[in-house]
Amino acid sequence: MSLEQAITTLAKSARQAARKMAVCSTIKKNQVLETIAESLISQKDRIQNENSKDLAYGREKGLSNAMIDRLTLSDKVIDSMIQGLKEVSQLPDPVGTTWNSYVRPNGLQVARVRIPLGVIGIIYESRPNVTIDAAGLCLKAGNAIILRGGSEAYHSNMVLAQLIYQALELCGLSGEAVQYIPTRDREAIKVMLAQEESIDLIIPRGGEGLIRFVVQNSTIPVLKHYKGVCHVYIDENADLSMSENICFNSKVQRPGVCNAMETMLVHASIANTFLPAMARHFSDYAVELRGCPKTCEIVPEVKPATPEDWGAEFLDLILAVKIVENMDEAIAHIDQYSSNHTDAIVTSDYSRARQFVNQVDSSVVLVNASTRFNDGGQLGLGAEIGISTSKLHAFGPMGAEELTGTKFIVMGDGQIRE
Amino acid sequence: MSLEQAITTLAKSARQAARKMAVCSTIKKNQVLETIAESLISQKDRIQNENSKDLAYGREKGLSNAMIDRLTLSDKVIDSMIQGLKEVSQLPDPVGTTWNSYVRPNGLQVARVRIPLGVIGIIYESRPNVTIDAAGLCLKAGNAIILRGGSEAYHSNMVLAQLIYQALELCGLSGEAVQYIPTRDREAIKVMLAQEESIDLIIPRGGEGLIRFVVQNSTIPVLKHYKGVCHVYIDENADLSMSENICFNSKVQRPGVCNAMETMLVHASIANTFLPAMARHFSDYAVELRGCPKTCEIVPEVKPATPEDWGAEFLDLILAVKIVENMDEAIAHIDQYSSNHTDAIVTSDYSRARQFVNQVDSSVVLVNASTRFNDGGQLGLGAEIGISTSKLHAFGPMGAEELTGTKFIVMGDGQIRE
Repeated sequence: MSLEQAITTLAKSARQAARKMAVCSTIKKNQVLETIAESLISQKDRIQNENSKDLAYGREKGLSNAMIDRLTLSDKVIDSMIQGLKEVSQLPDPVGTTWNSYVRPNGLQVARVRIPLGVIGIIYESRPNVTIDAAGLCLKAGNAIILRGGSEAYHSNMVLAQLIYQALELCGLSGEAVQYIPTRDREAIKVMLAQEESIDLIIPRGGEGLIRFVVQNSTIPVLKHYKGVCHVYIDENADLSMSENICFNSKVQRPGVCNAMETMLVHASIANTFLPAMARHFSDYAVELRGCPKTCEIVPEVKPATPEDWGAEFLDLILAVKIVENMDEAIAHIDQYSSNHTDAIVTSDYSRARQFVNQVDSSVVLVNASTRFNDGGQLGLGAEIGISTSKLHAFGPMGAEELTGTKFIVMGDGQIRE
Repeated sequence: MSLEQAITTLAKSARQAARKMAVCSTIKKNQVLETIAESLISQKDRIQNENSKDLAYGREKGLSNAMIDRLTLSDKVIDSMIQGLKEVSQLPDPVGTTWNSYVRPNGLQVARVRIPLGVIGIIYESRPNVTIDAAGLCLKAGNAIILRGGSEAYHSNMVLAQLIYQALELCGLSGEAVQYIPTRDREAIKVMLAQEESIDLIIPRGGEGLIRFVVQNSTIPVLKHYKGVCHVYIDENADLSMSENICFNSKVQRPGVCNAMETMLVHASIANTFLPAMARHFSDYAVELRGCPKTCEIVPEVKPATPEDWGAEFLDLILAVKIVENMDEAIAHIDQYSSNHTDAIVTSDYSRARQFVNQVDSSVVLVNASTRFNDGGQLGLGAEIGISTSKLHAFGPMGAEELTGTKFIVMGDGQIRE
């Protein structure tokens, strides 16, 4: 069987299984998640044994320490997978909730009801824990899922996918509701992206290169963000101590993630007071600052920023700093360089706060809070499958509800159209 | 300037204009719609004069009567454009409405607020009235719009786009919020579909060929339906007179549209009573029936259906008819052949009604009502820009609200992430 036939067959069986998942009760779906969690506990040795094969192969291939770290299914990572499944099983089930029900003048009762999306394809790179996290959330929302993980995590993903299969079958559901594409061949992604008849949504997770490849090659809708270039703007009326805390947290708490601050914008009238103290704080934690000419004047230790530094996603302890004359200049800078992911203002001025949240075109816009709050868990979605910077369907963190859609149900008594 | 440069420039200027439209007040947006409506009244002669150029060219090219009919901006069509603008101006403005606002344990106040999608690209074929209808709804929802109409409606679309431009400028807004791609070159569509940086959504309207071309070539999200293959299932407990009315209305009231019935499924136990009377009714209105072998046994005048008739979108006075042993067989048939557009059951049985609406995977599922109700106006959305059979973002008719998305707004008092 060719790769194309194999993947087409697999996708069709996922479509079949999705029909059954869509009408599966909440109790049954939660039971599946708990069964997976139990097997992660009982099969931990087997999982870590398979994982060690990937780690050995990765070291042989010369993967960086950061990559090896992401690949490792340590006790702690397995525990967090178990914890995640338990949390998702306790979330409310979005499927079947009705909103916006009304009666038309002719007596037709119209309602929109949440339904699963159907089959969701996840294309991801090195973290094998995504296999469990994504399957848990997709199943909770009544979907089937097709997983295609990175080749470096092959053995880890295969064993996790097997455990999910067994849990589904044990609960009397079709194991085919979770499919893993068992090939290291990259061509498999292209074939997957052409299964428009069987897959309803693709979510790519990984570097910008992978995501652009997916968008270019997919006829299936894709939810994604290319990168997170997040800004914090310190207004002239900001509380300076709050500003320092928020900027420090936004940059330093976890610099390698998409909701970390990459550029700090400072109102000119407070730059002389704010910047020297802020720079010292950053310097204590080895944050490299790259500033506009005015910033470099005020804090001579700051390295001059190059044009590429504006709009750069450093994912590291590096920060671009710019002094702006007013909020309009800050918003214009954000318009030009933001990735529509997360942007924040620190201010004590009511009308500036309103203007900023209205005008800034990002998935999460914050007033007086750290950019690090753009996260499904932090914003109360329970768990998240990713963050979207496309405005269609979901803009921002995506939880279980974002893995559903709505259909119209119309109840009549024989109405016909005049 | 090359075609690519020209369209890229045009798309960027739409993106700029969209930023201003996004923060435009409801009063101002309604004023624009009313101004366009007034200019349709005052410039009717000029519009019809331009339209006559297209009609002359169309007749020369040998367009069918149906095509010429769609192309014609008669007094009646212009009146309905004016009426449509007035209705849309009276709709509630979806932008700025907040839903699902709550306070997190750390005091952060989280809300989701409706925002315009940004720039919407509409690719359509022969009906020039789409220029006005689409622009009206997109502007109401605070979006900019890029229009690319059919080459056969070139002069009509150009004059309508000019009137919209003038109305925007007259109201003090940027005329660039509505752009028309002024070329008959089909390559223009490809260039348009590559403007991922400037266009947020593509809505194609037209034949299946055009829509498939758009999906294949777009890196921008597309909302569409390929076709409408709608079913009505007559259950054994159905009221037969109601069934006859609903089936007749679903097929005959307007056979050329996507929400017309294409296949009728009849429970075996009532086929002998229901089918002969129904067939006579259809035959009086020249509806050609194509039946399964059992149907042909009961009504010998019925032509045998070929395998291609199941799942066919006839868009004409032709209907496929199949007798099924039970509802499961009806649902399985719908699963296999439906286009996920509109499907209906006629029944008096409570649990069958529930089962049908839960299991049938279509954008609008009806009980005891005509399929012709899958329409934005009929379902109370006010106006519609199209019907989506993709489950993402919008599934079913799309009104002004479906031309918006949501962003998260987070209000804090200095919260940082622990």
